[in-house]
Amino acid sequence: MLWRMLELAFRPDRAAGPPLYRQLADHLRELVEAGRLAPGQKLPASRQLAEAVGVSRNTVNLAYEALADADLVSAHVGQGTFVLAQKGWLARSADPEREPGLAWEGLLSARGRSLRRPSGLSRPAAPLPFDFDAGRVDLASLPRTELRRALSRAAGEHLDAIANRIDPAGWPPLREEIARSLVARGIRCEPDDVLVVHGAQQGLDLAARLLVDPGDAVAVEEPGYFGARLAFGSHGAQLVPVPVDAGGLSTEVLARTLRARRVKLVYTTPAVQSPTGEALAPERRQELLELAAQYQVAVIEDDYDSELRLASTVTPALKREDEAGRVIYLGTFSKALFPALRVGYLVGARPLLRRAVLACAAAQLGGSLIEQAALAELLRSGVLERHVRRVRRLYRERLDAILVALSESFPSTARWSRPAGGNSIWVELPAGVDPDALARAAAEVGVGYGRGELFQLADSPPPCLLLSFACAEPGVIQEGIGRLGEVVKNALAQEVGR
Amino acid sequence: MLWRMLELAFRPDRAAGPPLYRQLADHLRELVEAGRLAPGQKLPASRQLAEAVGVSRNTVNLAYEALADADLVSAHVGQGTFVLAQKGWLARSADPEREPGLAWEGLLSARGRSLRRPSGLSRPAAPLPFDFDAGRVDLASLPRTELRRALSRAAGEHLDAIANRIDPAGWPPLREEIARSLVARGIRCEPDDVLVVHGAQQGLDLAARLLVDPGDAVAVEEPGYFGARLAFGSHGAQLVPVPVDAGGLSTEVLARTLRARRVKLVYTTPAVQSPTGEALAPERRQELLELAAQYQVAVIEDDYDSELRLASTVTPALKREDEAGRVIYLGTFSKALFPALRVGYLVGARPLLRRAVLACAAAQLGGSLIEQAALAELLRSGVLERHVRRVRRLYRERLDAILVALSESFPSTARWSRPAGGNSIWVELPAGVDPDALARAAAEVGVGYGRGELFQLADSPPPCLLLSFACAEPGVIQEGIGRLGEVVKNALAQEVGR
Repeated sequence: MLWRMLELAFRPDRAAGPPLYRQLADHLRELVEAGRLAPGQKLPASRQLAEAVGVSRNTVNLAYEALADADLVSAHVGQGTFVLAQKGWLARSADPEREPGLAWEGLLSARGRSLRRPSGLSRPAAPLPFDFDAGRVDLASLPRTELRRALSRAAGEHLDAIANRIDPAGWPPLREEIARSLVARGIRCEPDDVLVVHGAQQGLDLAARLLVDPGDAVAVEEPGYFGARLAFGSHGAQLVPVPVDAGGLSTEVLARTLRARRVKLVYTTPAVQSPTGEALAPERRQELLELAAQYQVAVIEDDYDSELRLASTVTPALKREDEAGRVIYLGTFSKALFPALRVGYLVGARPLLRRAVLACAAAQLGGSLIEQAALAELLRSGVLERHVRRVRRLYRERLDAILVALSESFPSTARWSRPAGGNSIWVELPAGVDPDALARAAAEVGVGYGRGELFQLADSPPPCLLLSFACAEPGVIQEGIGRLGEVVKNALAQEVGR
Repeated sequence: MLWRMLELAFRPDRAAGPPLYRQLADHLRELVEAGRLAPGQKLPASRQLAEAVGVSRNTVNLAYEALADADLVSAHVGQGTFVLAQKGWLARSADPEREPGLAWEGLLSARGRSLRRPSGLSRPAAPLPFDFDAGRVDLASLPRTELRRALSRAAGEHLDAIANRIDPAGWPPLREEIARSLVARGIRCEPDDVLVVHGAQQGLDLAARLLVDPGDAVAVEEPGYFGARLAFGSHGAQLVPVPVDAGGLSTEVLARTLRARRVKLVYTTPAVQSPTGEALAPERRQELLELAAQYQVAVIEDDYDSELRLASTVTPALKREDEAGRVIYLGTFSKALFPALRVGYLVGARPLLRRAVLACAAAQLGGSLIEQAALAELLRSGVLERHVRRVRRLYRERLDAILVALSESFPSTARWSRPAGGNSIWVELPAGVDPDALARAAAEVGVGYGRGELFQLADSPPPCLLLSFACAEPGVIQEGIGRLGEVVKNALAQEVGR
């Protein structure tokens, strides 16, 4: 077997030299370059290789990641890691007749070197019949005619006003519509307080650029949104996880954290916690604002899903009570409409906003004004509001269906969230279930879901799943969750039988 | 007079304390906050105030910039700097009844603090009848019907394929079309070598994120593209200017620079130098690549305008001969179509490209796939190529017209470039002309243009103008350049008469 070969040949040097994962990666790289591991060959599962060569599974995963970074292997969730054929620039620069390529590794910035693909992000190659993976919307419900008409008008009658414009702050009529909608949510806001961004993710990136120096501590929710971690991490932030329970971010732990160390920024998703979907408890809202005032900390309120309220009570935005301008408020249209529509907004205190506009100019000069103009029209005409009301009804039905299906099919030892909004549910399985094996077994019966690791920062987090009910009819939910429940029960039975 | 008041009250402390501009800014801020400078009041011209209080003009400009940053004043090119009314967050946080606002200054990162609005970027409030300002395209020639149809199809029949997709590398059919078009330009390239970016600016930003640590030296052209400086500067790069002449970047000076200090990255616009429009001389192309190899330096080739060739000979891309993968190649559709269409591309060696995709995900998750899909169709159907051929003819006519008008109207002591591509011309005036006074005088006779300072890094650069002929018919060019020539001659006569 392949891992036997690796086991015999690999001798980790624990005393000195590069970190273990680097040693393992180099060893594997030599095998690939020497042709001993051929293109298309599957590498051992990380658990197997870890046991075989006597290192931790994390070490193997890091080594595989480094090889994937170097384009030597490709990783597919639930399928394994495969040796890639050498082609393109890589093959050319490896050609001994040609001059040696630039040593890119040596040129990378600290941020460039530290970039890592978030684990658990890949999707299955082929669509699965019971797909509960998150980050999607129900396509059938999209207001297609209105969307086409709005885009057509933006590129038609509005084109003369748009085409020669570069506006890092965004299309002015859209800023007006956004300010109007925020005022309606009780947030004091003028159009000049609004920066249109390329999805909420750009808002996170701009905030990180403006506030985070390498090594600065940023408090994030655990479990929490991977995109925020990606943005802060890519600017060298030290991520400090603060646990989340059914009442959202634990302000008690946050208070201890702020007392213990200097934190620059707190990232939170109070209306619809990502990934649990639960809302921040009312008393914690006030505590959070008081802590921010006491410790002079900025707060990013990512209100990404607030339109898609499922609960009967509205959770008001933190920003409503932010007299002092401490809260950077982010919203997006990617959830209410569709993910590929990359338009969001950032509302913040003027001294910060002004710099955010400059940072936005440095990053991309300006946004996609045609999409922004089309969106302004969908807001102005009320199309978006009607669409959101329709989708909210749809998601409520599907939430009911998935809650029933989970109760019927999942083991009693599993626990799941009661989302106040959005379109997904966070499920925690009993310890001992192997996430990779579970994903493989689920895919075999046609079921896909979001990997919990994507939202977890802890070293050995409890095995979790994110189940989105956005795209599945109640019948599909019942059948798919039923199948998944069987797979989970089998996994637990195997675990117990060990 | 106002500046008398300032003169009397302001006592710079050169020995200790904050930098002079900060002292001046604080003094002015106190006057604004005390109401001694009322909203709407015009501040003295920087030259006047500099003379009056005995500091350099640069100090005054920095002080005004700091005030604009704090939203206390607004600056309009050719009109002056005005005290702003206090409103929004600023007014609220200044309200003594409310809790004091967050001290944002103290929370900013080093990069956040160092962000500066590039001087010379503002545009006149009202459009001018003879507007030669750069960065625009001829609106009348845009392929409107095809553009609307392509967008409508992207949001119609392609919507199901697009809506739920997040693809940091870009819409795959567009990557294919771009690779095809690059192969046609002699660049070896597969779709997997292409990263679709949000305008060439995002390509610059991603390259800077991956390669630039604070303090790293980046060689840039002088005069050179302001967007590149903005991107590199916003990541803490130390910009090292390398002069440009009629043969483009001086490889002789670059060689000396590389010998003298460690440089991470060389930024160049070889096909159509920004701003001169001239091409890199053939022998320098080879020298540049050899220098890059010798010193293991990465090169960014910003080929932003290569489609809009005006000269009869084609300047081949550096990337064509880049066997070793040293060149990061950037292109964009914002010039060939229109600026508000924020789609460009980055082609680079795989180890870099892979990280660029991750950095792109951290920055914005993914691009505007609807615009990308529409653009893929315009490329596939040949619409874009036909459009570029049409625009090229148009720009050649206008280039001829502006060259004639400049010869007829401008003083013999002025010099201008012979652009090989693009749609603008760089004019150097004799030393002594005051850029602010000239812009004001030109605006008075209805003429606008791009400010040279925007492209100059030097402390006291020669007075230069960037004249775009993209949007003006030959008759408008003749009349407008005639008026501008008069203004320039008057300015020179005044200078001589001093």
